[in-house]
Amino acid sequence: MRKLEERILEDGIVLPGDVLKVGAFLNQQVDTGLLADMAEEVFALFSGCGVTKILTIESSGLPFATAVAMRFGVPMTFAKKHASANMTDDVLSAEVFSYTHGKTFRIVVGSEYIRKNDCVLIADDFLANGNALKGLISIVESAGAKVAGAAVQIEKCYQGGGDAVRKTGIRVESLAAIASMDGGRIRFRD
Amino acid sequence: MRKLEERILEDGIVLPGDVLKVGAFLNQQVDTGLLADMAEEVFALFSGCGVTKILTIESSGLPFATAVAMRFGVPMTFAKKHASANMTDDVLSAEVFSYTHGKTFRIVVGSEYIRKNDCVLIADDFLANGNALKGLISIVESAGAKVAGAAVQIEKCYQGGGDAVRKTGIRVESLAAIASMDGGRIRFRD
Repeated sequence: MRKLEERILEDGIVLPGDVLKVGAFLNQQVDTGLLADMAEEVFALFSGCGVTKILTIESSGLPFATAVAMRFGVPMTFAKKHASANMTDDVLSAEVFSYTHGKTFRIVVGSEYIRKNDCVLIADDFLANGNALKGLISIVESAGAKVAGAAVQIEKCYQGGGDAVRKTGIRVESLAAIASMDGGRIRFRD
Repeated sequence: MRKLEERILEDGIVLPGDVLKVGAFLNQQVDTGLLADMAEEVFALFSGCGVTKILTIESSGLPFATAVAMRFGVPMTFAKKHASANMTDDVLSAEVFSYTHGKTFRIVVGSEYIRKNDCVLIADDFLANGNALKGLISIVESAGAKVAGAAVQIEKCYQGGGDAVRKTGIRVESLAAIASMDGGRIRFRD
């Protein structure tokens, strides 16, 4: 999506440790005009797929997932990174290793929020090594529901997570696909 | 907002420990039709106030804040509960005691996301003792910006946080105002 790529080039900042800071418009602060355009793009990509629910993971995936779900007119649900007080024991869960935090999280969705007849589109802000996405796919499959695919705002292609999931037959669409950030210079995949 | 009150009576569950579970439609899973109606209501309440930005706190305030910000056509920004790796040291912060978690969090917003000339509407899912709201107000004021007010989805009036903030002269609007949940029965404030 050219508009997002242009914005990343304009306002994205490459920090040491392979971090792309897009806080000014995509996560810490969200440009809601751009967000609406991204939701529209995801709707164009997946509108024929019978999507009944959008699934993401807290926190930074929530604005994107909310906008996408509003565009589809379907509910949005999200995985928490640890079980909370007002979540019953009846949950769907998966173990996800986070390189950012250097530890394994248990991600959890109340089992009443994904049903066997759901067709779930997974939405997230970043896709790098794919661990979070694989965890979310595992949760949908453990509910016996169908994965419509995954839509991510920014994919770091060189970390391989997206292509690994595509090889399993699941459709993964990224609105901006970064091929490399060598020397602080962002290059997109053709 | 009658539609939200009716939904709370229909699908909300009062759990021990004064917990109101609204996961089926408001936080763990979000009914995006109802969400759009709520954003419309907040727009009707605050549209003449010159709002330039919506501020919330992660995680469960994010869907509501996103929808409200999209309706106003302004950016949404959110406070994190602890500083993250790709946030620089230049931050606005406040200490917030959480009764739910029994500890004090440092909530943090990058200082570049709230500017002196901003007029900030705070949006959150729950308002009970008001600690989170007071922390967010303190962050806006420390940036030298104006607080347009606060819009919350559900206020537990009997915990007093909303009225305490109103007494300081800040406008607080709740879409559903719960007067009591004694014996598991939900009563709204007139």
